[in-house]
Amino acid sequence: MAASLGFRGAASGLWYWSGRRRPVGSLAAVCSRSMASKTPVGFIGLGNMGNPMAKNLMKHGYPLILYDVFPDVCKEFKEAGEQVASSPAEVAEKADRIITMLPSSMNAVEVYSGANGILKKVKKGSLLIDSSTMILQFQKNGKRSEKMGAVFMDAPVSGGVGAARSGNLTFMVGGVEDEFAAAQELLECMGSNVVYCGAVGTGQSAQICNNMLLAISMIGTAEAMNLGIRSGLDPKLLAKILNMSSGRCWSSDTYNPVPGFMHGVPSSNNYQGGFGTTLMAKDLGLAQDSATSTKTPILLGSLAHQIYRMMCSKGYSKKDFSSVFQYLREEEPF
Amino acid sequence: MAASLGFRGAASGLWYWSGRRRPVGSLAAVCSRSMASKTPVGFIGLGNMGNPMAKNLMKHGYPLILYDVFPDVCKEFKEAGEQVASSPAEVAEKADRIITMLPSSMNAVEVYSGANGILKKVKKGSLLIDSSTMILQFQKNGKRSEKMGAVFMDAPVSGGVGAARSGNLTFMVGGVEDEFAAAQELLECMGSNVVYCGAVGTGQSAQICNNMLLAISMIGTAEAMNLGIRSGLDPKLLAKILNMSSGRCWSSDTYNPVPGFMHGVPSSNNYQGGFGTTLMAKDLGLAQDSATSTKTPILLGSLAHQIYRMMCSKGYSKKDFSSVFQYLREEEPF
Amino acid sequence: MAASLGFRGAASGLWYWSGRRRPVGSLAAVCSRSMASKTPVGFIGLGNMGNPMAKNLMKHGYPLILYDVFPDVCKEFKEAGEQVASSPAEVAEKADRIITMLPSSMNAVEVYSGANGILKKVKKGSLLIDSSTMILQFQKNGKRSEKMGAVFMDAPVSGGVGAARSGNLTFMVGGVEDEFAAAQELLECMGSNVVYCGAVGTGQSAQICNNMLLAISMIGTAEAMNLGIRSGLDPKLLAKILNMSSGRCWSSDTYNPVPGFMHGVPSSNNYQGGFGTTLMAKDLGLAQDSATSTKTPILLGSLAHQIYRMMCSKGYSKKDFSSVFQYLREEEPF
Amino acid sequence: MAASLGFRGAASGLWYWSGRRRPVGSLAAVCSRSMASKTPVGFIGLGNMGNPMAKNLMKHGYPLILYDVFPDVCKEFKEAGEQVASSPAEVAEKADRIITMLPSSMNAVEVYSGANGILKKVKKGSLLIDSSTMILQFQKNGKRSEKMGAVFMDAPVSGGVGAARSGNLTFMVGGVEDEFAAAQELLECMGSNVVYCGAVGTGQSAQICNNMLLAISMIGTAEAMNLGIRSGLDPKLLAKILNMSSGRCWSSDTYNPVPGFMHGVPSSNNYQGGFGTTLMAKDLGLAQDSATSTKTPILLGSLAHQIYRMMCSKGYSKKDFSSVFQYLREEEPF
Repeated sequence: MAASLGFRGAASGLWYWSGRRRPVGSLAAVCSRSMASKTPVGFIGLGNMGNPMAKNLMKHGYPLILYDVFPDVCKEFKEAGEQVASSPAEVAEKADRIITMLPSSMNAVEVYSGANGILKKVKKGSLLIDSSTMILQFQKNGKRSEKMGAVFMDAPVSGGVGAARSGNLTFMVGGVEDEFAAAQELLECMGSNVVYCGAVGTGQSAQICNNMLLAISMIGTAEAMNLGIRSGLDPKLLAKILNMSSGRCWSSDTYNPVPGFMHGVPSSNNYQGGFGTTLMAKDLGLAQDSATSTKTPILLGSLAHQIYRMMCSKGYSKKDFSSVFQYLREEEPF
Repeated sequence: MAASLGFRGAASGLWYWSGRRRPVGSLAAVCSRSMASKTPVGFIGLGNMGNPMAKNLMKHGYPLILYDVFPDVCKEFKEAGEQVASSPAEVAEKADRIITMLPSSMNAVEVYSGANGILKKVKKGSLLIDSSTMILQFQKNGKRSEKMGAVFMDAPVSGGVGAARSGNLTFMVGGVEDEFAAAQELLECMGSNVVYCGAVGTGQSAQICNNMLLAISMIGTAEAMNLGIRSGLDPKLLAKILNMSSGRCWSSDTYNPVPGFMHGVPSSNNYQGGFGTTLMAKDLGLAQDSATSTKTPILLGSLAHQIYRMMCSKGYSKKDFSSVFQYLREEEPF
Repeated sequence: MAASLGFRGAASGLWYWSGRRRPVGSLAAVCSRSMASKTPVGFIGLGNMGNPMAKNLMKHGYPLILYDVFPDVCKEFKEAGEQVASSPAEVAEKADRIITMLPSSMNAVEVYSGANGILKKVKKGSLLIDSSTMILQFQKNGKRSEKMGAVFMDAPVSGGVGAARSGNLTFMVGGVEDEFAAAQELLECMGSNVVYCGAVGTGQSAQICNNMLLAISMIGTAEAMNLGIRSGLDPKLLAKILNMSSGRCWSSDTYNPVPGFMHGVPSSNNYQGGFGTTLMAKDLGLAQDSATSTKTPILLGSLAHQIYRMMCSKGYSKKDFSSVFQYLREEEPF
Repeated sequence: MAASLGFRGAASGLWYWSGRRRPVGSLAAVCSRSMASKTPVGFIGLGNMGNPMAKNLMKHGYPLILYDVFPDVCKEFKEAGEQVASSPAEVAEKADRIITMLPSSMNAVEVYSGANGILKKVKKGSLLIDSSTMILQFQKNGKRSEKMGAVFMDAPVSGGVGAARSGNLTFMVGGVEDEFAAAQELLECMGSNVVYCGAVGTGQSAQICNNMLLAISMIGTAEAMNLGIRSGLDPKLLAKILNMSSGRCWSSDTYNPVPGFMHGVPSSNNYQGGFGTTLMAKDLGLAQDSATSTKTPILLGSLAHQIYRMMCSKGYSKKDFSSVFQYLREEEPF
């Protein structure tokens, strides 16, 4: 990903929502309702994901205070009349609700606790919402924010760049329940589903559980399809049977890993695009950590982790995670 | 299972169809259309599954020639005017379409190749449809039937006793395509989905693939739900999130293994009823065999097999297979 | 393996015995002791393994009646004065102790139950010793032999071609205990360890258990060595530490899979020679079958099976099974 | 473990060394050689392991400066004339070689970096040797020590309480090579094997690799023994066969998990004593972390981790880790 994009959004969710999508037109209504009294919102991290998210806040009438390590990516916002700050600390000085969308734990440390970080100038009662995907950092930033009298929430996001643009992201939110409404008001400008999950960190936990189950059912689908094909079944027919049956899952009915019979999915595009094998391996590492700290047995989750780790070392690291079908399939007769 | 039930149907499918169910009333229409010229159909094995299946054939106006090793189970059919034969051979003499629904390979050997078996008297061109679940026997009975000039099809059934009663079973059919229409005519009296899968044995293969994927996604769901709960998430909320997301599967949205928030599923009834752990272990053994003979790697399928085998030895053998959640959950703090 | 070798011995054992080896010279003593009264011994299957085994019987003074599907391989025995038969049946007519060393189940069926098979002419009380590796066939041939009044034993062999030549094979013998002494007399001409295991089939079972444990500890050694090396440890030092410690195993101290510091093992010869990955995958399939039929949970054994199956499809099929280290190692940074 | 024991030694090693044991008598020689010029050695943590280790240093003539959070455990040392300090900082002031033997990461943080920790008063050039088992803390304490001008080494210990008493422990040492001799001088008073492994942390890595391989081969042995027994083999005979063969490992020949035929091992004492399942699960968690950070695939290691985690929740947490045989064995017929 080009450096000029600034902070990239950590879009490691790949959630496709079956729910109602935001209807065209409702936006105007929402905007007009609350345009009057809007206080500025801070937004830090204007990468692939953050950029369209910030624009959706603008559309809803929120004045923005922006920051990104790459000043270039703030240009178009400046031209549109928004304020650009010179540091996260300055954002914290000028806004009492701040959203961060950062690519890595290291960035999160710097943005929150760095020499010019948010926590240097954060005001009491400010609301800090982190939509990145960094489990350990959440805890630390949460505690440090609390010490400063601020309110911290984790709100990892699902849905990819397309959903970010159309305002159809999903947010899983962890934090103090009393403050949820304040966060929801902002997040609903950017997403069609905003789910309250519980204490700080639970938003992240929900995402990790989903991605672990996703990895397991994707590998399972690949194994079952491969076994069926080798037993003489037509893949399209087999998928149809599974999808009418108890084997049905998102990986079989929406994102089938077998090339050639489903349109618009990575398997039909040489496993390009989508959710990379490396990212899945990373998320399964988080699941592993979480399972170890809670003493939870995850037999299949743990093996799925190892399988994606193997794939990363065999040339699949940049392919979509559904390429596990190809990995299992590449057989020579013996 | 009580001996008086005679042959039990091998209902190891647990397919729940999302498709259109047979509307009440359509039955009459179907019956009247074809009542006129119906030739008798043989039916061997009148257990839990076979009994209601045979009744559905009757409702559609087919005269039956029945046989079961336990003569008692034929009584009610006799009283309703159907013929009861004294052996499978006699059935083969009197009917040229025969359906078998048998509980084990041993029964299948006897019924087909025994001293008074079908193949002793089968007529050239007869159609033999076996709805049992016995992979190896299919091949043998298929070949022997062919030698005798008969047509053999495997048509394993999915949907359980309820679906057998309501005529909403699903049949996955393997056999010569030209003869499929003839089988379909009968099977549609008993099921709402009749899917042609390919050559003899492919019906069975499709069912095995489905059940393997089912086992994998059920264990995966149990692991993910358990991990989430231990991380502080409410189970009902977590299920809702998964079901809106890419982790969604039949095991999470229709048959959730966590007790307490979904009605009418075994998990809310102390894991009674449903599809037993022992049967799932057996089906995974068939998947293992099939994978070995086709050299297919099934890493998760193979581990799922071992997990269900462990459960069978820890007191879960008669519980529904979703009790894997309980198996993983039963933790003492340490 | 060249077709001209005739039946290949099924040397899928790879047992290296730490015990006392047959001292040079002892042979003469053994020979002189029993030379006088020796009755002919039948030997069927003169491949890589069978050829040197038969020669060791000759050295001990046993007249042989030989058979192989490839008559050429019998030539040198004929020139040395031994009888060559035209079929297994003829061997059975002329010898009342017969050893078979066959490469596959199909060969075993033909040799025992074929049109000119042993069982056509076997004499009552004859002793049939099968040193091949074919679990199911053992049972069948055992039963059929018994029906004919003959005694059947399975005596799978371990130690490879080198051990076959030097008369240092190990035999694990299953069969009626009363007849063990008769088998032992012959087997000790070819092996330095002849272990009585129990009823027919237990020789085979012992070999399967050993090979399953071998596969598990080999993969475990490869994982541990790889993890250590990636953590900055010198491989030779790590091996030394393991071998002084509780992680010690045959795979770490005698057959280390890491290239470069142990001489005379496949890992130092680009994984050439040794015991092929395909054969290991086959033996693990037998373990899987055995576990399924005895309802034994084999979690690691089952996963080891899948790992060797994957390797077979990734170009490792002809390499030694210790190449699993290379398979795990081939990592690109990511 | 009773609180009065003070710091418990983190004896998670279970290494049994085949090497030469310290001969009786050599002790005197060592002592006299260096008695003259001995400077005091600091020792922090006098639990099960630390207590006999410190005593062995005393026997070799080293004056000690002792500390434990539970002052009672220092009494007998005080009575024997050794100095007891009131904090780790005081130890650091008075000694320039300090050995720490602590039960958990939390203790290590406090002892090194706490308000009265070692690093408050450590002298330039001091040698700090940590024999605990806490992978992450090693790195941090190492770096902090270095900042203060001190030299840090990790020297995890193997061999259990018996070996601690007899001075037959093994130390795997990680740290700057130039300083190894200084550490070795002390460690050889307490152990018969002192192995230099490389940079800081490699001592710990070696121990983790060993224990992971140990877990894998123990489970593998349990599976193979169980499979053999269920196939009709006598366990003692099977163990003998494995131990003569390529399946041989420490778990099969020295610590066999099957009760009844090997003396002095936990399996013959209802799995009491030995190395607890919980500790093995903990060490496998460290292996998992290490594998994740080095991107090493550990398929069997990862599954072994989950198996020991399952066992912890099924009442095996306090049994010896060889009880995995019992866990797999507890089968009801089905």
